[in-house]
Amino acid sequence: MVFFYRRFLPLDVCIYAFGAENDASSSNLAIPLSNLERLVKILCTAIRFNERLFGRTFDYERSYGEELIVTPRGRMKIGEAENRYAVMGIGVIVGETPLYFDGVNEWGLCAAALNFPQYAVYGVGKNARAGVSSAHLISLILGFCRSCEEARDMLSHISVSAEGADEKTPPTPLHWMLSDPRSSLVVEPLASGLSVLDNPVGVLTNSPRFDYHLARLADLTALSPRNPLAKNAAPLYSRGMGAIGLPGDFSSSSRFLRAAFLKECCDCTSGGGGQNKADCTSGGVGQAFDILSSVAIPRGAVLSDGGEAVFTRYSALMDMDSPTYYLTTAACRTVRKAILTDSLCEGQHIVKFPIYREEIIAEI
Amino acid sequence: MVFFYRRFLPLDVCIYAFGAENDASSSNLAIPLSNLERLVKILCTAIRFNERLFGRTFDYERSYGEELIVTPRGRMKIGEAENRYAVMGIGVIVGETPLYFDGVNEWGLCAAALNFPQYAVYGVGKNARAGVSSAHLISLILGFCRSCEEARDMLSHISVSAEGADEKTPPTPLHWMLSDPRSSLVVEPLASGLSVLDNPVGVLTNSPRFDYHLARLADLTALSPRNPLAKNAAPLYSRGMGAIGLPGDFSSSSRFLRAAFLKECCDCTSGGGGQNKADCTSGGVGQAFDILSSVAIPRGAVLSDGGEAVFTRYSALMDMDSPTYYLTTAACRTVRKAILTDSLCEGQHIVKFPIYREEIIAEI
Amino acid sequence: MVFFYRRFLPLDVCIYAFGAENDASSSNLAIPLSNLERLVKILCTAIRFNERLFGRTFDYERSYGEELIVTPRGRMKIGEAENRYAVMGIGVIVGETPLYFDGVNEWGLCAAALNFPQYAVYGVGKNARAGVSSAHLISLILGFCRSCEEARDMLSHISVSAEGADEKTPPTPLHWMLSDPRSSLVVEPLASGLSVLDNPVGVLTNSPRFDYHLARLADLTALSPRNPLAKNAAPLYSRGMGAIGLPGDFSSSSRFLRAAFLKECCDCTSGGGGQNKADCTSGGVGQAFDILSSVAIPRGAVLSDGGEAVFTRYSALMDMDSPTYYLTTAACRTVRKAILTDSLCEGQHIVKFPIYREEIIAEI
Amino acid sequence: MVFFYRRFLPLDVCIYAFGAENDASSSNLAIPLSNLERLVKILCTAIRFNERLFGRTFDYERSYGEELIVTPRGRMKIGEAENRYAVMGIGVIVGETPLYFDGVNEWGLCAAALNFPQYAVYGVGKNARAGVSSAHLISLILGFCRSCEEARDMLSHISVSAEGADEKTPPTPLHWMLSDPRSSLVVEPLASGLSVLDNPVGVLTNSPRFDYHLARLADLTALSPRNPLAKNAAPLYSRGMGAIGLPGDFSSSSRFLRAAFLKECCDCTSGGGGQNKADCTSGGVGQAFDILSSVAIPRGAVLSDGGEAVFTRYSALMDMDSPTYYLTTAACRTVRKAILTDSLCEGQHIVKFPIYREEIIAEI
Repeated sequence: MVFFYRRFLPLDVCIYAFGAENDASSSNLAIPLSNLERLVKILCTAIRFNERLFGRTFDYERSYGEELIVTPRGRMKIGEAENRYAVMGIGVIVGETPLYFDGVNEWGLCAAALNFPQYAVYGVGKNARAGVSSAHLISLILGFCRSCEEARDMLSHISVSAEGADEKTPPTPLHWMLSDPRSSLVVEPLASGLSVLDNPVGVLTNSPRFDYHLARLADLTALSPRNPLAKNAAPLYSRGMGAIGLPGDFSSSSRFLRAAFLKECCDCTSGGGGQNKADCTSGGVGQAFDILSSVAIPRGAVLSDGGEAVFTRYSALMDMDSPTYYLTTAACRTVRKAILTDSLCEGQHIVKFPIYREEIIAEI
Repeated sequence: MVFFYRRFLPLDVCIYAFGAENDASSSNLAIPLSNLERLVKILCTAIRFNERLFGRTFDYERSYGEELIVTPRGRMKIGEAENRYAVMGIGVIVGETPLYFDGVNEWGLCAAALNFPQYAVYGVGKNARAGVSSAHLISLILGFCRSCEEARDMLSHISVSAEGADEKTPPTPLHWMLSDPRSSLVVEPLASGLSVLDNPVGVLTNSPRFDYHLARLADLTALSPRNPLAKNAAPLYSRGMGAIGLPGDFSSSSRFLRAAFLKECCDCTSGGGGQNKADCTSGGVGQAFDILSSVAIPRGAVLSDGGEAVFTRYSALMDMDSPTYYLTTAACRTVRKAILTDSLCEGQHIVKFPIYREEIIAEI
Repeated sequence: MVFFYRRFLPLDVCIYAFGAENDASSSNLAIPLSNLERLVKILCTAIRFNERLFGRTFDYERSYGEELIVTPRGRMKIGEAENRYAVMGIGVIVGETPLYFDGVNEWGLCAAALNFPQYAVYGVGKNARAGVSSAHLISLILGFCRSCEEARDMLSHISVSAEGADEKTPPTPLHWMLSDPRSSLVVEPLASGLSVLDNPVGVLTNSPRFDYHLARLADLTALSPRNPLAKNAAPLYSRGMGAIGLPGDFSSSSRFLRAAFLKECCDCTSGGGGQNKADCTSGGVGQAFDILSSVAIPRGAVLSDGGEAVFTRYSALMDMDSPTYYLTTAACRTVRKAILTDSLCEGQHIVKFPIYREEIIAEI
Repeated sequence: MVFFYRRFLPLDVCIYAFGAENDASSSNLAIPLSNLERLVKILCTAIRFNERLFGRTFDYERSYGEELIVTPRGRMKIGEAENRYAVMGIGVIVGETPLYFDGVNEWGLCAAALNFPQYAVYGVGKNARAGVSSAHLISLILGFCRSCEEARDMLSHISVSAEGADEKTPPTPLHWMLSDPRSSLVVEPLASGLSVLDNPVGVLTNSPRFDYHLARLADLTALSPRNPLAKNAAPLYSRGMGAIGLPGDFSSSSRFLRAAFLKECCDCTSGGGGQNKADCTSGGVGQAFDILSSVAIPRGAVLSDGGEAVFTRYSALMDMDSPTYYLTTAACRTVRKAILTDSLCEGQHIVKFPIYREEIIAEI
């Protein structure tokens, strides 16, 4: 029941993707997805820190049983095609297919899916017949593209369909952030079709649309990591008063603003110990995790309507220069890492690694 | 040149403290300490999480060379007395005396010193003649008191003098938070003398005075970790919108408000994995460090007037139930710990442990 | 050089409008109007208070020489047609044509133009060939429509052209709010054409687009005119603490939020003295002006980049039930009014009234 | 049951004041006045605009039947003394004594009483035996002092007693702002006695204490009536964005901050039409009323716990240069005025003028 579309990459290679053969778009999701409120659950933040590091938090009240999944070249079917490039990232396997929440491929292209409730519209636009389900979009992009530029080209030929991950599952409303060493993109499924925009800020959270967050960022123009010049009857009582007005709650808008401000202030390249760029595995990674911690949700700070704690289950960093996945979790602060080695890229099988591990407590 | 005062604890034990023999109070610090602006450098947050855990961040642009210092019983002179109880905490050693920034003693009594610029007034009040320098106050309290109650009693007999840690050093403007399993206190040196107040919130940051922060906390009354009921033309676009208004900057007031809100929302007893109270060394500690991370300053987010980054160098947790010191630093996210064992309490010498260690990066 | 389009109102009456005969859309304004920053000057707020009263402020650093202009039936040419309905409102006369900033017509239909810099796109969309200049849109709507419903129908057949008020004047970036006793509309010239939306809030200010302001309104969901229940260590210190978080500055976004909150809280129907709806000329008008005062800009509170004060020059209320124009100005707080009488509607000439009059100071 | 104290003004004139003869202080009000919550009703703002104009709003859910009251010289008994100077202001008459909410005397000294719930402490301090009730303090100050300096001197000899306006009425918790052409003072009855401070900001609202409001004012240091320099990915969308962060609600703290910001930005001397200082009866008065309007409470924006609207009943301005009282009310926007003429100063009787008058609506 799928048809395949074919297009020519600059590489002259065929790519195929899911698509409903019949005019299924008429049965696709209406705007807004208000009847999918129950899906409006995941709060996430994605940040491109610099030309090496891309990161994200994953904030939810339940675990999907997500694991770190490595898909070697050619071991994942997307439509009738097999993935050209190896992918490493966090997700779940449904049937035999990895559904990635985020990941980095062997070319250093990174992607993260973030919840986009009430705004995601699937199965519309000029490419409505060449749709891929939202659950498979990252697999498609990371499996077949080497850069944001290639992904932008691919995305100009497809849409996101209203199919779920499988027949029992309704589609999750999502939008995506892509990053490579040169740029980052925001991909949003809107009523007018699939919007692909440059991301001048390097941050994405959740609903509303990216242009909302970007416009609101102007409200922070006067904020600064430096204190203002005292100018009136009341002397400054603290350092850090130049950023008064920065929001501290965990709504999608406030996390966007906080992440954008901190990312601009904090140079992750030099890291915590003055390391140069090549050392980003130590200083830069620590610095980037510190920023992610500033937008991470402690358990209890956000509750669902049902009273369950929505908290940051994992925070991830991906090295775009030498594909590596760094991870901390609510269960364990210690940074763990996995390198996408050549042998992993060439493996015979999809490999999974559990991510929620015991806290490591070392001796002082 | 010091005189000694004697008082009777409920235990009928003598305690001695520094004090200027002559009427040195006339040479003591004026109000406000505006000429000490150069000392106004340290931003810190202290939180009593529950009946077991007390924590603090230490935010500064330079290192004092601070280390974890264990002082066994009787190995530290405060005035002419020797410490009755063993103390473990972070600080520096000047001369042969540990100057503690914070610490926990063998009875589980904890203390943290926090910068209090423009507001600290030393060498005044009815006990002006029985003064201890601000640098030694924690050593005095933790060395001779077993509880907040005993500390309150001791503090009713002394003042904080305008002496520095040594003759070359001007005094640092400080106030203090004390905590034991039953209560916490705020100790502030004011123009009217040494103020000792119960801390109903369990949070302290920096200037202005504690009553300012407490009054302002009323502004957050309506905030909640739950979303409000949607009631107008604009639907809620995110979870976490019930806490919109929570400040996100790093000024002392905003850190106070954020810490107080998060501490109230987040139950550190149950921890990250549903552990019971006895397990606080894993879940509870992780949860408490997550809250400290929410008020920690990433490198670059606050700059001094000279452009240096003022950032969280270390975050500490102290277990009041079985005296233990937990630590993470800007250099290493992994939690490290040291237990105040009987053999340490009975040691012959003050022992020091370096705290800034390499990042640990484990394999996934 | 204009062509005329014809359409059938429910009344089966011809309406004509300006339009560039040639495909002038190619020469029309690009997005965004960043080169028109110098036009980005006017801050305004429009509010539909209830089924009788529609109001607006006009905030600018210069006067255009605006006056109250009454256009009797048939005395104003819009394209080749003459206005069917009499109009009263504030504006200027260029050539022989009134350019209304706002107004009410004999049917009680009201309109206000508000600055829409960086977002207004003219001369695009499916009706690009049937364009009316932004300066003439209110004249067209109030001259030929009796209700929002009729205006919506008309607007579905036209676009806003990139012409200025005359050949020397570049077009002003504008969007509009319309109101009748049953509803209100927001009209925005966007890249996709002329957007006409119901206004569920009854407020409009300036850029960004209306959907931005509407989405952000969700941030105020928890605010209330009542105090919250005190729930933590800090007692409430004031009434009015339930609305903490309401912004108080004069940016377009903050005025939108403040106006929307106040309009929802304050029932202008009952007015200041308990009058019923029929008495809105006293109590209701006073109450509505009080709300406009809350979003009005005192002289000095907003400065242009050149240092000129941008302030509220006039605040107007229009009675949609019996067409009347109420006015207060920066020069005079006393409410002045003009009624659109039958004799004015049937007049032979356009009539003008000066609006900036001396302060009236009465004896107590 | 009163005793009289005598002191020597620079004028060598006796002043007398109420005072409980016996040690009534023991029966005086405890801290805090939590059992007087029902009195915590009035929200007010007082502003000294410049060397001529002092103003205030009066915000309450009920009318006391207040009127404009002129007390000629010698026609009001305060204790056993009679007022030396004529006073004009708003208040009520209890028995035969005017209780002024605010007023100006023939020397241009102005005073306003503002609610100070939970913080006012009466009947304490070194002058506890020479107390005047809070209800009579303005009459005492304006009746016997010609300047802030003289008032400061008088206040150093008295306290505020815990008596109400009469035997049936409990005392209202109040603090006061005084103003003359050269300075302004804040007078607060605290646990440590009557505090008299210079007011460097020229604004007072309600609880908490003045030092709280002053400290918090530092949070606004970076705000400006000018737009900041655009510096990031999001262009400024409006003028007035330099003051984002200014609070817009009507709590005492937010009104203080808003009033202080607007007063600093807005030069009331030049007024609405460029008039010079001598013209303050037109331009300056209008400008000052515009600022008062920005902190005035529209009916409905604040509700009492019982659901009654707490709104600005009147806004007043007093000319310190040539004693005059200007007034607008919720019932009538038109400015009304009364001049404290020589003949009024020399009158035989206290004279009252009703203040709530019909709206004046003039023709355009």
